[in-house]
Amino acid sequence: MAFSFSLGARDPGSRARRGTLRTSRGTVETPVFMPVGTRATVTGIAPDELTALGASIILANTYHLLLRPGPDQFRRVGGIHSFMRWPGLVLTDSGGYQIFSLPDERTMSEDGARFRSYIDGRFHQLSPESSIQMQTAIGSDIMMVLDECIAATALENAGRAAMERTHRWALRSLAARTNPEQALFAIVQGGLVPSLRQESARFLSEHPFDGFAIGGLAVGDTRAQREDMTAFAADLLPPATPRYLMGVGTPPDLLVAIGCGVDMFDCVIPTRLAWQGTGFTSTGRVRVTRGAHQASDEPLDVACTCSTCRTYTRAYLHHLMKCSEPLGPRLLTIHNLHYYLDLMGQARAAIDAGVYAAFAKQKLYEMDRHEHGEARA
Amino acid sequence: MAFSFSLGARDPGSRARRGTLRTSRGTVETPVFMPVGTRATVTGIAPDELTALGASIILANTYHLLLRPGPDQFRRVGGIHSFMRWPGLVLTDSGGYQIFSLPDERTMSEDGARFRSYIDGRFHQLSPESSIQMQTAIGSDIMMVLDECIAATALENAGRAAMERTHRWALRSLAARTNPEQALFAIVQGGLVPSLRQESARFLSEHPFDGFAIGGLAVGDTRAQREDMTAFAADLLPPATPRYLMGVGTPPDLLVAIGCGVDMFDCVIPTRLAWQGTGFTSTGRVRVTRGAHQASDEPLDVACTCSTCRTYTRAYLHHLMKCSEPLGPRLLTIHNLHYYLDLMGQARAAIDAGVYAAFAKQKLYEMDRHEHGEARA
Repeated sequence: MAFSFSLGARDPGSRARRGTLRTSRGTVETPVFMPVGTRATVTGIAPDELTALGASIILANTYHLLLRPGPDQFRRVGGIHSFMRWPGLVLTDSGGYQIFSLPDERTMSEDGARFRSYIDGRFHQLSPESSIQMQTAIGSDIMMVLDECIAATALENAGRAAMERTHRWALRSLAARTNPEQALFAIVQGGLVPSLRQESARFLSEHPFDGFAIGGLAVGDTRAQREDMTAFAADLLPPATPRYLMGVGTPPDLLVAIGCGVDMFDCVIPTRLAWQGTGFTSTGRVRVTRGAHQASDEPLDVACTCSTCRTYTRAYLHHLMKCSEPLGPRLLTIHNLHYYLDLMGQARAAIDAGVYAAFAKQKLYEMDRHEHGEARA
Repeated sequence: MAFSFSLGARDPGSRARRGTLRTSRGTVETPVFMPVGTRATVTGIAPDELTALGASIILANTYHLLLRPGPDQFRRVGGIHSFMRWPGLVLTDSGGYQIFSLPDERTMSEDGARFRSYIDGRFHQLSPESSIQMQTAIGSDIMMVLDECIAATALENAGRAAMERTHRWALRSLAARTNPEQALFAIVQGGLVPSLRQESARFLSEHPFDGFAIGGLAVGDTRAQREDMTAFAADLLPPATPRYLMGVGTPPDLLVAIGCGVDMFDCVIPTRLAWQGTGFTSTGRVRVTRGAHQASDEPLDVACTCSTCRTYTRAYLHHLMKCSEPLGPRLLTIHNLHYYLDLMGQARAAIDAGVYAAFAKQKLYEMDRHEHGEARA
C-alpha cells in the first residue's frame, strides 16, 4: 500500500486538524511528534521503550547514516527498521540542515554539497539524487528532499537564490525516487520573507509530493517571527497533504503550530535537555541538577504517569546526574518524550472534541506562567 | 528476621556447595554473582532490568556513597533500596579497597583513613566505626568490615601488619554494629602467604561474623596464584557461614572458586567490558567494535536467550558502539550480566545434580579453548 493521508476532525476555533498517515507498515495519528533518532537510535532508549511511550514514528538523519553505518549496511538488512528493530515508521531528513551547519567543511554547488566525513576525513558528495538513493537504502517511510538551508534571517536575495535551488533540487529528488512505497515530502523555504514563502509554496504544490514541510525556521529567528511565519506558511500549503514543521520546537511552539494547521513535528529539545538534566513538567521546566532537588522525595512531576515519575524521586535523578551515571539521562529522556507525546495526545483529543483553541490557550497560559515562575525560583 | 545462611546440596566431586541466604527482604540462592552498582546504580541499567535478568543481590560501595549522595540522603529515605528502587538485596563494600587505590590522596593510621574527596576536595575520615555508621545509613543487607588492603604480592612483614590491623578493625566494626538486621562479614587477609591466611582465618572465625570474605586477591596476583590461594583460604573458613571472594573475577575464576566452596562473588568485569564493547559468549569473548562484526547479522551469541541476543545483531551493536551511542553499552551490559547470572544458575543446577566437577571441567575446557581461538582470530 502506498502512502496516504486522510483528514479527520477540524477544530472550529482554530486551524487545528486531525489526520491519519497510512503506510504498509502502519498508521500514525496526527498531529504527531517524532522523537529524534539521528543515528538509528533515540539516544539511550530501546525501541520497546519508544513503543511503550506511544511513539509511532521517529526521525533519522540521512547525513549521519550515510557516514555511518553507510548505505550497504541498510541494503544488506533491508532497511533501518530491521537494522534497529523499530516496528514503527521512520522519516529521514535529507541531510540539508547538517550540510548547512558545517560551513567550513563543505562546498555547495548546483549539483549538491561536497563535504568531508567527520569520521574518516574522506570526501562525500550529497546531491538531491544521492540523498534519495541513500534514503531509499535506509528504507524510510517518508523521505525528505535535499534542500539548501540558510539562516531564517538571511537577506531576500540570498533567500531567493537558496529557495530557487531548493525548488530545482526538489524536482530532481522527485525524479530520482524509485520506490513508490516511500513517501517524499518537499520543503518550503523563503526565510522570513512572505513573498518568497508564497512563491515557494505555490511552486512546490504544483508537483506530486506526498507532503510539505516548512523549513528554515528555528535557525536564528525569534519566537514571534517563527509563530507568524508558521501561521502564514501553513496556510499556503495544500490542505489535503500533511504539513511538517521541521526542527520545531518547544511545547508552546508545538501548540501554536498545531493551531495553525501543522500536522508533524520533530525536535531534539526533549532528548537534548534530558541529557543536560532538565525535565518538562506540568509546573514548568525542572533542572534536577539544582541543589534544591538534592533532598526532594517528590517525583519529577507529580502529575505525570510515565515510568520515571511513577518510580523515581528527584533526589535519585539528581544523584544520577551528579554522578554522570547514564541511567539519569535515560530516565529523563523517557519522561520528556512522554511529556511531548502525551501533549500531542491531549491536542488530538481536544481537536476531536472541537475545543482545541480553548485547550491551547489554557495550556499556553499555564506554560508561560510556569516558565515565568521557574525563572524567578 | 535476622540474617541466616543454610547449606543445601554438596557436589561429591568437588568442594562446591549450594546455599541460601535469608533476610527479611528476601532470599538469595548461592553460589551467586552480585552485579556491581557502585553509586547506587548498575551503570545504565534500571532495577526492573536487573530483576528480569534474575539478579537477587547487588553490590554498592560505601566510599563512593559516603562522598555522594552522603549519609543524610539514605537516612531520610530509609536506605538504598528505597533510594534506587531496588527490591533485592544489597551488599556494601566498606571502602577499604577504594582507600587502598588512592595512595597519594590519603593517610592511614590505626584510627582509619583520612582522604580528600574527589568531588569537593574536602577531607573525610573513614574508620571502622564510621564505615559501619555509613553502611547502617545505607541500610545494606550485608555490611563489610573496613580492612587494610595491600598488594597480594606484598612482603610478609607488610602483609602481617596489614592483617593484624584488619583484625583489630574487624573487632571494632563488630562492636560498632547497631542494627541486628544487617549482616556483617569479616575479611580474611594475608596476601599470598599461607601462614598469614591461616592465622587470619583462625582469628576471625572465633568471632560472631555472619560470613567471611577472602580479600586481597585479584590485586597484582596471577591466575594460578589466585586459584591456589582461593582453594587454600576457602578451606580455612567455617563451613556453616557464607564465603565471599571479593572482586573476582572472570568466568573461569568463578567456576574454579565455586569448586573450592566459595558462595558469593562480585566483579566489575561484565559491566566494564560491556562499556568497552566486549561481550562474553558461548564461543569466547567478542569485541563488537572489531571490523569483522560490522556486517554481521548474527546475534552477539546465537546460544544466548537474553533480550539483547534475541533482538539485536552484532552489526547494530557495532554501529552503536562506533557512534558512542549509550544504547550500545546498555545492551552489552544486559548481555554480560545475563551471561554471568546464567553461568551461576548453571553452576547451582550442576551442584544440585551432583555433577559440578564434571560441569566445571567441561566449561573451563570450552572457555580456555575459545579464549585461545579468539586470540588467534
